[in-house]
Amino acid sequence: MQASNHDQKIIAGFDLAGYLTAKQKLINDTLEQILQDTSNTSHVLEAMKYSLMAGGKRIRPILCLAAAEAVGGSIDRVLPSACALEMIHTYSLVHDDLPAMDNDDLRRGKPTCHIAFDEATAILAGDALLTMAFQVLSSNEIPRPEHGSMWLRVTYIIAKAAGHLGMIEGQMRDIEAEGRKLSLDELERVHALKTGALIEASVHVGGILGNGSDEQIEKLKIYAKNLGLAFQVTDDILNIVGDPAVMGKSVGTDSLRKKSTYPSLLGKKQSRKLAEKLVNNALHALDIFDNKSDPLRAIAGYILNRKR
Amino acid sequence: MQASNHDQKIIAGFDLAGYLTAKQKLINDTLEQILQDTSNTSHVLEAMKYSLMAGGKRIRPILCLAAAEAVGGSIDRVLPSACALEMIHTYSLVHDDLPAMDNDDLRRGKPTCHIAFDEATAILAGDALLTMAFQVLSSNEIPRPEHGSMWLRVTYIIAKAAGHLGMIEGQMRDIEAEGRKLSLDELERVHALKTGALIEASVHVGGILGNGSDEQIEKLKIYAKNLGLAFQVTDDILNIVGDPAVMGKSVGTDSLRKKSTYPSLLGKKQSRKLAEKLVNNALHALDIFDNKSDPLRAIAGYILNRKR
Repeated sequence: MQASNHDQKIIAGFDLAGYLTAKQKLINDTLEQILQDTSNTSHVLEAMKYSLMAGGKRIRPILCLAAAEAVGGSIDRVLPSACALEMIHTYSLVHDDLPAMDNDDLRRGKPTCHIAFDEATAILAGDALLTMAFQVLSSNEIPRPEHGSMWLRVTYIIAKAAGHLGMIEGQMRDIEAEGRKLSLDELERVHALKTGALIEASVHVGGILGNGSDEQIEKLKIYAKNLGLAFQVTDDILNIVGDPAVMGKSVGTDSLRKKSTYPSLLGKKQSRKLAEKLVNNALHALDIFDNKSDPLRAIAGYILNRKR
Repeated sequence: MQASNHDQKIIAGFDLAGYLTAKQKLINDTLEQILQDTSNTSHVLEAMKYSLMAGGKRIRPILCLAAAEAVGGSIDRVLPSACALEMIHTYSLVHDDLPAMDNDDLRRGKPTCHIAFDEATAILAGDALLTMAFQVLSSNEIPRPEHGSMWLRVTYIIAKAAGHLGMIEGQMRDIEAEGRKLSLDELERVHALKTGALIEASVHVGGILGNGSDEQIEKLKIYAKNLGLAFQVTDDILNIVGDPAVMGKSVGTDSLRKKSTYPSLLGKKQSRKLAEKLVNNALHALDIFDNKSDPLRAIAGYILNRKR
């Protein structure tokens, strides 16, 4: 299979585990630094930190950094935007876990925000993480005036992907679809919005801030679209076969909620094949890039084989 | 009393009711236009529209437009940002009304969002309104590159005022203070954050996008700081003496929740005097402006005499 061949080639030449660890540290350090502030006397900043620093995989910011690297851009320039993407992802988890939404008690192996604090604090902490993302995006130092337009474009891409035309519409459709069997097209559209839009934005923004060419950015977006969907298909599979101890969250919840998933519509075997095909498409989109895109290649392989 | 003198002078020369009606129409038309979109199949956009078009007073966007006018700026340029401010204000109301927060059933004379829809939809509609504000702020056409920096600065000011260093911190402190008697200083700080920060940002942003001088912008911020606090003091008074039919929301709720308010700490009479003093300070800050700032002057008088 092509995906596996790609995968082996990558593992031979590239230390993904080392790359991910280094990038996670960079992102965590930057997030800690951004959250250093002493003017809050309420618990809201504590709750924001609790959820943001709960040991997430940092896939979106890493994709953002890796996309910038793939086009030869600088990590420093893209780092604040990468952190903003993680803030948006975290806020969405905090709100999704609320009793009125998925009502989850456990996230990343720890009590969810509304369990560790309370519901009002979790709602506000989520709101604050979302708002802070835009504060970070707009706080960049602008050495040259034309950079202002660039960051404004980046802010727009992220806001559109996260809002009622992207992630939030996906989440709402997902909720409204509970108990109803979706078609494969409907399911794909839900995921393209709910998780795909922000993953695509992460890679897109990395490409823009890395000064990628239009062609490079188009290819990066195709990579991200396929990767995002592959990520969701494997997520659905892990919700059946995953180990809760490794994943740090409950499994079997999709089936309990009678949610349409790839395994429920296609079966486990076909779902696995679909994930492989999507990863293969993602890798193919990287053909025009040199070995600076090895991290993106390796991440595609990782998505396919992840255990959490 | 100086405030009343100012007030009469204004009423003699300026049709505030006509001004507010015209500006409300402009803002409502622009909001309707922004919300025109057919790609949503879920209920989230409907819920966003429901809350956004529920007949709010539009004080924040009007202050933003009036500040731009005061420094001789163009309304067209500032209108999208003014609408973004109203989206942020509305999202904060939708979330504040949730059962886990203030648990209010009535807002602007209509069922609150989570009553008209459901809790999950209200959480997501609030999130989406907040996100959309930043989409609107970053979607401005940028005829010249240096404008990018200007809008980025505006985005930063709004995000900071709305987030964990501003409005959200104020809301969290307000919740955490329930049942505890605050000092006057603590109460002022809560309000400066909870409502003051976004009102100040509204005027600040209007001044910036209207190309105001540094001195003009500083004076506008003093105006807004005093006006914002005056607004809150009169809000507290209306929560005791207001007519629910005129206000479109319940009264007496602060007392029921044992919340510290200006009337509970100072009494009604002293609270009224404080509001007058603050409005007077606001008017004084406008002394350097010509009659293009009459709308701002008249609004200050309106805040003092408002019935809803």
